[in-house]
Amino acid sequence: MSVPSVGIIRVLTSEDPAVVEDHGRLLHERYGLHTVSRCIPDQPHGIHDDATHRRAEPKIVRLAQELEADGVDTIIISCAADPALDDTRAAVRIPVIGAGSAAAAVALSLGRRIGVLGIRDETPPAVAALLGTRLAASMRPEGVHSTTELRTPEGTDAAEKAAADLVARGADTLLLACTGLTSVGVRPRLEQRLGVPVVDPVLAAGLIALYRRTA
Amino acid sequence: MSVPSVGIIRVLTSEDPAVVEDHGRLLHERYGLHTVSRCIPDQPHGIHDDATHRRAEPKIVRLAQELEADGVDTIIISCAADPALDDTRAAVRIPVIGAGSAAAAVALSLGRRIGVLGIRDETPPAVAALLGTRLAASMRPEGVHSTTELRTPEGTDAAEKAAADLVARGADTLLLACTGLTSVGVRPRLEQRLGVPVVDPVLAAGLIALYRRTA
Repeated sequence: MSVPSVGIIRVLTSEDPAVVEDHGRLLHERYGLHTVSRCIPDQPHGIHDDATHRRAEPKIVRLAQELEADGVDTIIISCAADPALDDTRAAVRIPVIGAGSAAAAVALSLGRRIGVLGIRDETPPAVAALLGTRLAASMRPEGVHSTTELRTPEGTDAAEKAAADLVARGADTLLLACTGLTSVGVRPRLEQRLGVPVVDPVLAAGLIALYRRTA
Repeated sequence: MSVPSVGIIRVLTSEDPAVVEDHGRLLHERYGLHTVSRCIPDQPHGIHDDATHRRAEPKIVRLAQELEADGVDTIIISCAADPALDDTRAAVRIPVIGAGSAAAAVALSLGRRIGVLGIRDETPPAVAALLGTRLAASMRPEGVHSTTELRTPEGTDAAEKAAADLVARGADTLLLACTGLTSVGVRPRLEQRLGVPVVDPVLAAGLIALYRRTA
């Protein structure tokens, strides 16, 4: 590739280019980043519990090494749980950005009581560790347990309802703790309806990539 | 003003346009942001101890209100100590970004052991609170006690030496905890020499402003 690119690791297996490329397309539109997206193999429902998280980790490290060998200059692990972040940093020489810690970072600079909307009952540890006492509350949309379930109309509605509940419980900033929420595009609607900043993990990771590449 | 702008509050009094505009110029060059910079009155040596911090706070709130009335759509308090951040957020209706918390946020998404280089012996509380256990160590360049002292060749040399010491003590990421270090332009040289990411508080604040304005 001629222009140095940001490698995006998708932790969801898909052969649909519209799905595989959606995070990269967003980062190109917003920040002008050139990206190359690749999926880990054999996880059509992504990462949604401890077993799928563990299974994904070595695949992410391998994909990062391949992307580095192919010439990308920065890697984004596009998952709010930051799977394999430390192992990947140890395995390559280029900067590696986790979407979860990037989102937590951006949220910390915008608010004091962060409400986390994800697809598991617990807050991703990588996000909770950074938010510390600024983690106000964490919610999962009713009926949603994986990134693919967010793509149904019911899943999107449930996500909007959970977001409103977090604000009602005092959150002054929302953090979307699943990059599947990026794909369904709820953020602009949530910001408009709820009047609080909503931090998207893919945009946050892209922003940090922008810092590393131009700073 | 026709294009909505980012208001930059300089916590240093100066009538030299090169000094007043340097942070705005940097943010325009890097991120294409349009900015308006204004200084708080009667503090030619900026904020460098508790007394000067306290004295600056009501001036920052007033300046933010003036900038909002003049039509800016985002405010950056360009000081790593985040002076008057909560009071300013309460006093205006537009987003307010503190350079200290923005820098801490960006540093947290890049590394695990953050070394802080500032102009006071203690880490700015706004930065320390966010870094938590990831604050590896904090240093002040020898002989430097204010932002203006950084501008001498001795001040810049001392800053570079302190940065190298932080890395020698295990820091994997550096955070410049004084926006005066932005003005003297040490960051690119430090990154090249020391091989670790160096987070500039003005660039970090600009990055977060970019998120709030385009997200």
